[in-house]
Amino acid sequence: MRQALHRITIATRGRGLVAVGEPICAWTEAQGIATGLLTIWCRHTSASLLVQENADPDVRADLEAFFERLVPEGDFYRHDSEGADDMPAHIRAALTQTQLSIPVEGGRPLLGIWQGIYLFEHRRAPHRRELALHLLGD
Amino acid sequence: MRQALHRITIATRGRGLVAVGEPICAWTEAQGIATGLLTIWCRHTSASLLVQENADPDVRADLEAFFERLVPEGDFYRHDSEGADDMPAHIRAALTQTQLSIPVEGGRPLLGIWQGIYLFEHRRAPHRRELALHLLGD
Amino acid sequence: MRQALHRITIATRGRGLVAVGEPICAWTEAQGIATGLLTIWCRHTSASLLVQENADPDVRADLEAFFERLVPEGDFYRHDSEGADDMPAHIRAALTQTQLSIPVEGGRPLLGIWQGIYLFEHRRAPHRRELALHLLGD
Repeated sequence: MRQALHRITIATRGRGLVAVGEPICAWTEAQGIATGLLTIWCRHTSASLLVQENADPDVRADLEAFFERLVPEGDFYRHDSEGADDMPAHIRAALTQTQLSIPVEGGRPLLGIWQGIYLFEHRRAPHRRELALHLLGD
Repeated sequence: MRQALHRITIATRGRGLVAVGEPICAWTEAQGIATGLLTIWCRHTSASLLVQENADPDVRADLEAFFERLVPEGDFYRHDSEGADDMPAHIRAALTQTQLSIPVEGGRPLLGIWQGIYLFEHRRAPHRRELALHLLGD
Repeated sequence: MRQALHRITIATRGRGLVAVGEPICAWTEAQGIATGLLTIWCRHTSASLLVQENADPDVRADLEAFFERLVPEGDFYRHDSEGADDMPAHIRAALTQTQLSIPVEGGRPLLGIWQGIYLFEHRRAPHRRELALHLLGD
């Protein structure tokens, strides 16, 4: 049994979902670990992780619209020194995932056929986001 | 230290919570691993995992009613080719869990006394759902 | 590769966020495991875990206010025998996290610079809450 640790940086274009499955799966497969557990950790509090359907781009648009309605910008937040989009970003991150751990089989994360892994950028401005990847197995 | 990987299939009856703790704990105990980490991965984007009170069935009814209010069906979704319940299902999955990792002690997941593990079916029609189970320990 | 299992008890003062990163990181560092995976499991269904900004206390106040608006107390819940705050507590727990798994590097959880770990107490009364900690690595 052995483990590997890695970090990847993702450039976002502002609010919205960015597919990150490809670099994550490529790194996982390159470790030569057939069976194990892959953990993805998002090192931010205004961006998060999401597993969603990878087929129809409308799913991503509907998700973003839902979170706009659920957590609107407005003058009812105390924490606003970094901009009107900052506190809603923290709340959206709290409602989604900071971490995912996926069983690995045959060297690949055991995602369902329709499952894609996304980084959900919650700020309006583009950011560079760091994900820590941890793989354990044999 | 060793690991085990398994898949179980759960038949759902349409929207609602299905208790899945029993087959998951039974498989875990059968692996003969005293101390470790159990990971459950739901391989779908319109069903998810939830830890909830296992005592009063009213808790499940209230939870389902809350999600009906929070993520109603309606004509404000673009993604509707698979039915009016499909996009709300993806959003409900995003708001709950795709994965749980539970420490194992004495061969059993270290659940609190009132904690039950549920599969949350978000589609109206019955489905067959697959959970991947990964156990690591000694 | 080896593992360690531990439990810590956190006293809460009623509804709100309690910083728990310090005792969790202290225990992790004391295990002498340089690289690995730390899992935190909250053994309750009316308290949960949250990763949030650790700098501005207003973030916590805004988060609490948001959840008050999103999941208000009211007479529309069936499950009310334990008080009006009980069912909202279960729903808030469902919308946040019961578990976090964090990669460990240099003996410490790989948190981002602004990330703090919080126990989110959802009941009005003070409680004693138990977290199970599992560390695996070498």
